[in-house]
Amino acid sequence: MWSVDPRTGNQRERVAAEATAGDVDGAVRAAHAVRGALADREVRIALLRAAADELTADGARIIATADAETALGEARLTGELGRTTGQLRAFAAEIEDGGYLDVIIDRADDSLTPPRPDLRRYKIPVGVVAVYAASNFPLAFSVPGGDTASALAAGSPVVVKAHPDHPATSELTGAALRRAAAKVGLPEDVVTVLHGFEAGVELIKHPLVAAAGFTGSVRGGRALFDAAAARPQPIPFHGELGSLNPVVVTEAAAGEKAAEIGAGLAGSMTQGVGQFCTKPGLVLVPAGEAGEQLVATLAKRLADVAPGVLLDGRMRDAFLAGVDARTRLDGVAAPVAAGEGEGRTVAAGFLTVDGERLLTGGEHDLLLEECFGPITVVVRYADTAQLTALLARFPGNLTATLHLGAAEAEDPNGRGAALLAELTPLAGRVLVGGWPTGVAVTPAQHHGGPYPASTSHSTSVGATAIERWLRPVSYQNAPEALLPPELRDDNPLGVPRRVNGTRQV
Amino acid sequence: MWSVDPRTGNQRERVAAEATAGDVDGAVRAAHAVRGALADREVRIALLRAAADELTADGARIIATADAETALGEARLTGELGRTTGQLRAFAAEIEDGGYLDVIIDRADDSLTPPRPDLRRYKIPVGVVAVYAASNFPLAFSVPGGDTASALAAGSPVVVKAHPDHPATSELTGAALRRAAAKVGLPEDVVTVLHGFEAGVELIKHPLVAAAGFTGSVRGGRALFDAAAARPQPIPFHGELGSLNPVVVTEAAAGEKAAEIGAGLAGSMTQGVGQFCTKPGLVLVPAGEAGEQLVATLAKRLADVAPGVLLDGRMRDAFLAGVDARTRLDGVAAPVAAGEGEGRTVAAGFLTVDGERLLTGGEHDLLLEECFGPITVVVRYADTAQLTALLARFPGNLTATLHLGAAEAEDPNGRGAALLAELTPLAGRVLVGGWPTGVAVTPAQHHGGPYPASTSHSTSVGATAIERWLRPVSYQNAPEALLPPELRDDNPLGVPRRVNGTRQV
Repeated sequence: MWSVDPRTGNQRERVAAEATAGDVDGAVRAAHAVRGALADREVRIALLRAAADELTADGARIIATADAETALGEARLTGELGRTTGQLRAFAAEIEDGGYLDVIIDRADDSLTPPRPDLRRYKIPVGVVAVYAASNFPLAFSVPGGDTASALAAGSPVVVKAHPDHPATSELTGAALRRAAAKVGLPEDVVTVLHGFEAGVELIKHPLVAAAGFTGSVRGGRALFDAAAARPQPIPFHGELGSLNPVVVTEAAAGEKAAEIGAGLAGSMTQGVGQFCTKPGLVLVPAGEAGEQLVATLAKRLADVAPGVLLDGRMRDAFLAGVDARTRLDGVAAPVAAGEGEGRTVAAGFLTVDGERLLTGGEHDLLLEECFGPITVVVRYADTAQLTALLARFPGNLTATLHLGAAEAEDPNGRGAALLAELTPLAGRVLVGGWPTGVAVTPAQHHGGPYPASTSHSTSVGATAIERWLRPVSYQNAPEALLPPELRDDNPLGVPRRVNGTRQV
Repeated sequence: MWSVDPRTGNQRERVAAEATAGDVDGAVRAAHAVRGALADREVRIALLRAAADELTADGARIIATADAETALGEARLTGELGRTTGQLRAFAAEIEDGGYLDVIIDRADDSLTPPRPDLRRYKIPVGVVAVYAASNFPLAFSVPGGDTASALAAGSPVVVKAHPDHPATSELTGAALRRAAAKVGLPEDVVTVLHGFEAGVELIKHPLVAAAGFTGSVRGGRALFDAAAARPQPIPFHGELGSLNPVVVTEAAAGEKAAEIGAGLAGSMTQGVGQFCTKPGLVLVPAGEAGEQLVATLAKRLADVAPGVLLDGRMRDAFLAGVDARTRLDGVAAPVAAGEGEGRTVAAGFLTVDGERLLTGGEHDLLLEECFGPITVVVRYADTAQLTALLARFPGNLTATLHLGAAEAEDPNGRGAALLAELTPLAGRVLVGGWPTGVAVTPAQHHGGPYPASTSHSTSVGATAIERWLRPVSYQNAPEALLPPELRDDNPLGVPRRVNGTRQV
């Protein structure tokens, strides 16, 4: 695999080779063979913390390499490394907490009809997890990212298919994870990094792969989802694919803070050169003066945004083609034209269109598809009824955002509440105010949403991401001596449990 | 649809018609239109309890009809009705408990880097649920069964595809559910019953169907799973398909209680004429004297079991063909031959085979597939190593059962613990002693298992069955006035929550 500098298009260095089918088989078998080593919770806690330490220790080199491969910049990548190590430590804390095991104990009761046996349920790791790394977060959603961290936390070994946009970063971070494993006495094969498109295809078909996580495009994710479902033994495929991340600005919000919203939008949609999966890609603004003020602020702010370099040349081509196709649609204007910048850069811009164009299907439905890069679509809606009709046509999303006027935010029976209810079916995270870029790593986070945002109901960020790599099992009348500690009467690990209907925290 | 008496093969009465594509579309649209009516938790609690009451009130007629259509007998069906109403009431209690909402609240924290917004997560209903009813439990896994009860509890309306073996029972129980809806002020369309094979195919493809539950054969379930995955917007398909339910008897257990185990096996494998999805279909017994004593007891007890009537003629044909194909395999003996009984009955029996026949694949792998009806396969294993090698070849199961000697059950580092660890990857419920038939309806139950036992990691029995019909959503910085009560600071409904990392029960 060649590491390429997207700022120049030049090959930087050759790192690793594309994995053969034999390499994939070897990696999965090795991971499967060592899965038992992850059974001990203390060693998993130590592994995750050691991984954070190793990444931090090699941080300068990792950040420099990632910047050279992705052009995301040192500041952003420094933040992303902190997010990544924080994520690893957060999952260590979740293991300590133990709530993720979802322990339920119902003791035997002969007085019931029929008599109830002793049943004790918790969750066990699924087995080898395949992780498909993302392009746009070379750390936090790649080799050492949330999928890997949550799978290891669950006790499942990981085989990562690296993203071709940052093979050198993938090798460095993979080595850090394997060093961490060795330091805590685990076999290094609890994590393996593989490269190459064909390796990814082989991986999802391997009989010993028990589940998969993916972050990327609708096209790639759907192909792998289909392959996972078509296996002789289908496996769960937790894919995060595309998202439009609609934003609704009410008449009142536009009236009260058009300039603030316009400026915020310009910042959010150009963050990371518009390459966030939570980029606000479509903004519903009321037709009329207040809405136009918002649009004017957006235009002014975007004019000040310097062109940026996308992750790779293929994405640049797709962005330019996507912008072009959308701009050509009837009734679409480009107050600030996105497009080619100097050298290999692209300039940010936005489009406008009247809501009625999006009500009837046809070619304008292209505007309801994600366009990866620094572009957004401002849709002017005529009235409340049209807004509702527009929302009903939207696909599933990671996020939906609602900007309300001050009074709307205070009235439980008003327009704000009604709009929140209309947005909730559209997304996994619904924001009131603010912008969807920036995904807090915290237990209450949900980073997922109705298809095509996700291929499952799971999240890839936050504590509950661990649920993807576990399956429940219930023991019936197992003697105390044979039970795992989490299910024993004396609860030696102090995990939260529901016993005979009563929660014990 | 004709209601047929399996005892005679005669058509009893004509009930309802096969649903057309238009009927399916109408039912799903009607269900979707009324989904909001299920948002109120008090009305859902009332609905489930009223449904239990309605079923009880019409119990005599329902039981008589079900018996006439299934030949399962009044005693069994009386118990099943109690299980069904108990299940409905248990889900009402789960709504009251509120723990299923999995509420997590992380309050804003500006002291963090980056600052954390206010995030509040809970679970919302997925939308219209398609339920595919089972043949073998005309009540508990059919129209008013666990899938329907858990979906309604979650707040999702239901369209049931009735099983053709009991259309009259399906109509009666569906009417009871719709009466219950009307009594508590809900639209009747929160539950609709449809009949016909084509209706089932149309149903899984309907764009407004958001998830499906299924109990039935591997063939039928896999076809529907594939259709669910192939949709433009794939949906979760929670299928319970086939299970062998292996039983392991150790040398010590056989030595201590061969007769007791043999007798228990005869009872379990013939319960419901061998038509339980948890029927022990393969029993690993040590070669040698103690094992032969177990086999002798089994033979003696089975000779006393009266022939029984299977659910329909097609199943009888499949059973006879399945027994025949297995009996013809090299090295397979039939100490008690299962097969045709008088009239339309079948006689129970069992097969024996040496473990080495099952180690190498080939035609003997037929013995690793479920054969629905009163037959089991006793596999004589030569030694511990062969037992381990055999277990490694087994498919996924709903249950796995381990019979241990007294000392083995007491030793956390002995043979019993090792075998429990070998059985755990094979099943969703692992029993020590006893028999897998009989699935307690209780929060700690897990009725599901690795494929082909299930097409997902979910359970179809017990409190956590509700998780199948929910998806998480997180609200970011939503003002208190707009939040649902479950997420408000004052927690007016008193649901269990995890707030800033601390559990509040």
